[in-house]
Amino acid sequence: MDLTHIEHVGIAVPSLDEAIPFYENMLGLKCFAIEEVADQKVRTAFFRVGQTKIELLEGTSEDSAISKFIAANGGRGGIQHIAFAVGDGVANALAELEGKGCRLIDKAPRKGAEGLNIAFVHPKSTCGTLIELCEDPNK
Amino acid sequence: MDLTHIEHVGIAVPSLDEAIPFYENMLGLKCFAIEEVADQKVRTAFFRVGQTKIELLEGTSEDSAISKFIAANGGRGGIQHIAFAVGDGVANALAELEGKGCRLIDKAPRKGAEGLNIAFVHPKSTCGTLIELCEDPNK
Repeated sequence: MDLTHIEHVGIAVPSLDEAIPFYENMLGLKCFAIEEVADQKVRTAFFRVGQTKIELLEGTSEDSAISKFIAANGGRGGIQHIAFAVGDGVANALAELEGKGCRLIDKAPRKGAEGLNIAFVHPKSTCGTLIELCEDPNK
Repeated sequence: MDLTHIEHVGIAVPSLDEAIPFYENMLGLKCFAIEEVADQKVRTAFFRVGQTKIELLEGTSEDSAISKFIAANGGRGGIQHIAFAVGDGVANALAELEGKGCRLIDKAPRKGAEGLNIAFVHPKSTCGTLIELCEDPNK
């Protein structure tokens, strides 16, 4: 496994329209993209900080993972996942994890926001944290 | 405000002894320091990933913020905070945030793990996320 850096940190928010001004006006970051990911039922907003991105996530449906996370958190936002960039490919990383007995949400890479190949590891195997693995197919 | 990078991501875990082997054996990261921060009632373990560190946090007392976070999360771990490195100093950043009406947990920098000067911003002002600001006084 070759984790090169934290690709992004995924932060659930009740409303992008309320959260983006905090990140821009208070923290001085710049939102460079807003994207809807239909199959995950989310709208996302991206900010760059050094090597890493902040991905704000707003659920577009009550049955999205983000809306459920916020409901379980008393209606408040919070940090929902951490995504590592994998230098030797997501498929290789998944094979290695599965071979070591790690439980996976995605057994094969799929498309995520920004055209990345992504896969999620199950929190049951990570001491509770939702971990995403990413690779940029254009790099 | 000049946020240069994500200094670390703080992940609450029920047990460092269980979590460290996951980060080392599954993710291939290397724990380079274990430190107890007595006034925060936590034991921490650090891993480097690119520009950023992962800080695993185990509560050493039931009334620590980490133990309360885990209890509120059904006994499971999860990502508790995100820490930004501030290029122009934590004190300046706090003054700017307070001037803009942002609610702060720490009105002045204090010492955190690894000798950093740190301060926390209140989640009431950040759409729910616990945000830490850091500077390394030796840089």
